[in-house]
Amino acid sequence: MAYSVDDREYMSRALELAAKGRFTTSPNPSVGCVLVVDGAIVGEGHTRPAGGNHAEVEALNAAASAKGATAYVTLEPCSHSGKTGPCVEVLIDAGISRVVIACEDPNPKVAGEGIKLLQDAGIEVACGLYEDQARELNKGFIKRHEQGLPWVVVKMAASLDGRTAMASGQSQWITTPASRKDVQRLRAANCAIITGIGTQLMDDPSLTVRITNDDLGVTDSLRQPLRVVVDSKLQMSPEARMFAQPGDTLIATMDGPEQRERALPLEAAGAAVVFLPARDGHVDLHELLLELARRECNSVMVEAGAGLAGGFVAEGLLDELVCYWAPKLFGSDARPMFELPIQTIDAHLALAVKDMRQIGEDIRITLRPDKDY
Amino acid sequence: MAYSVDDREYMSRALELAAKGRFTTSPNPSVGCVLVVDGAIVGEGHTRPAGGNHAEVEALNAAASAKGATAYVTLEPCSHSGKTGPCVEVLIDAGISRVVIACEDPNPKVAGEGIKLLQDAGIEVACGLYEDQARELNKGFIKRHEQGLPWVVVKMAASLDGRTAMASGQSQWITTPASRKDVQRLRAANCAIITGIGTQLMDDPSLTVRITNDDLGVTDSLRQPLRVVVDSKLQMSPEARMFAQPGDTLIATMDGPEQRERALPLEAAGAAVVFLPARDGHVDLHELLLELARRECNSVMVEAGAGLAGGFVAEGLLDELVCYWAPKLFGSDARPMFELPIQTIDAHLALAVKDMRQIGEDIRITLRPDKDY
Repeated sequence: MAYSVDDREYMSRALELAAKGRFTTSPNPSVGCVLVVDGAIVGEGHTRPAGGNHAEVEALNAAASAKGATAYVTLEPCSHSGKTGPCVEVLIDAGISRVVIACEDPNPKVAGEGIKLLQDAGIEVACGLYEDQARELNKGFIKRHEQGLPWVVVKMAASLDGRTAMASGQSQWITTPASRKDVQRLRAANCAIITGIGTQLMDDPSLTVRITNDDLGVTDSLRQPLRVVVDSKLQMSPEARMFAQPGDTLIATMDGPEQRERALPLEAAGAAVVFLPARDGHVDLHELLLELARRECNSVMVEAGAGLAGGFVAEGLLDELVCYWAPKLFGSDARPMFELPIQTIDAHLALAVKDMRQIGEDIRITLRPDKDY
Repeated sequence: MAYSVDDREYMSRALELAAKGRFTTSPNPSVGCVLVVDGAIVGEGHTRPAGGNHAEVEALNAAASAKGATAYVTLEPCSHSGKTGPCVEVLIDAGISRVVIACEDPNPKVAGEGIKLLQDAGIEVACGLYEDQARELNKGFIKRHEQGLPWVVVKMAASLDGRTAMASGQSQWITTPASRKDVQRLRAANCAIITGIGTQLMDDPSLTVRITNDDLGVTDSLRQPLRVVVDSKLQMSPEARMFAQPGDTLIATMDGPEQRERALPLEAAGAAVVFLPARDGHVDLHELLLELARRECNSVMVEAGAGLAGGFVAEGLLDELVCYWAPKLFGSDARPMFELPIQTIDAHLALAVKDMRQIGEDIRITLRPDKDY
């Protein structure tokens, strides 16, 4: 399929619009739509928070008329009715003559059906322009539908020599306020924040999003990501600070009589408790991720100590590693980044650098696994 | 002192020329000179390797006439005779009318004397334009003359989680060929490469510069930096690969009857052995640096394991840390970057990021101590 310069320009604009929804649309994908008649944009829009309009409807509402228009959409228009009606119908009813799509919807309820219905209605459809960029924007949504798992980001803050805390456990704060604000952006972009009982007991964190709409440059309401505490023995206290915060807390534990009993006061404190299969005496992390995908989490961020973070890495569950390095040396007695037993150099985990930049005085490096690991 | 736009342009050019000598002029500083008559460059040059022309002479040789010219020089012209005559005299004899200097020469044989002689000859002199950049180019030369110590670069290659080798010691190669070639550039820019006996026995390294003039973009001959092995007990073998390489090897040890005896076959193999004061049962690293400055080393690079590198850091001898990170995880059993015992978080060593970039698939970060540490 050959695309024109105009096609590329309008789809780029649709991707820009789609990016506006990345903090607010989950569990739905973030989509952008641009309507063009005779070389001029007549309407554009992006997905509103769940229950609100999809991008196509937003764009059509903004247009006086879309008759004969070409619609540029970053994701295949939906063919099913969820909280809103199918977008395919509204595009047909509006008299659109051509639809250019960046990527197919992986949702099995759509998956090519939207394209087919448009074509059946006599509309010209092209699919695949800037597909990689569109998939990147909705990588969590796509992974959840394709694999039944959320996109997993592990965030670490470490000293230059790869240490996350002194031997005593002393750690706050390794990085500067600029990095901590950047972490707030990451939190806002994820559907759930996972921590371990060790960090919970040591720091009693809130794990809330405390960044503003202005900081993020978005107008729709931000959500509080689901807070998830991995607590195999259910040691968490009903007094934990987390329970007093806006948003929901889920405690993931193993099944057992002790856990069943200890769950009651935690549930009374407002937590949801989920009993998951065990692996090596701990909550099975793969099972946890399956559960979070079932709860419609597209993407999750692990903010935990070396043990739990190392567990996600060692079990091959990592999609992205975001490291904040403070330009400091903590020395060789301090705690490691990941509890990760590797014996020979050939067994190392290979990653590739996706992005690197300075955040205030710190360094942030984003990496992804280099291959199936 | 107010400088014109022209002054800034010509001094920028002189700094560019000075940079051309950074691999080749030691123990002399690398200087650039531009001669300007009536708004046109009539001659320019940079310092040639020791024994060759200084920048001012190179520029004058390139000019048909420099009568009435303004000379832009990145370092105060020398007033003493070393291997070459004093540049001040040749500038006066050439009829230069104005000299703009970036920074004073810290060499006590010059230190303002060059400026004074020029002024006494009726030449207008301005000093301080782009002084920071000029000092940066000759930071080793300047530190040696100001402090009697060389500029100390510690180079480390580590995994993302701050490990330099597996627990077994297995380490070659952490980083990619692109990083190793970049290390060759660093080697070529330093007067000495320091390693420890641990690395020497484990890897039997050559520690030579194996990069070409073309790679570096310079025409003058490259030198082999002095190879320095810190070997407190003098365990090095006369069979070491280093002795068969071009260039000189210096072994730094403590004084003692065993060392005196073991020195003989090493000296027979071509090494120089220096007996230095001890500190905590090892060669005193500060004494070693004083010795290397006496041997006219402007800058030295430490390429060693966690023990010796940690020693330079812990004793506050570090000027610059160059870290090559491979985007790999080696795990928590692997060896640390620095043997550096620090107990509380307030005692960490603070650095500041000077430069960061990708080198092939790896990441290189250059840091300097944030304050006196």
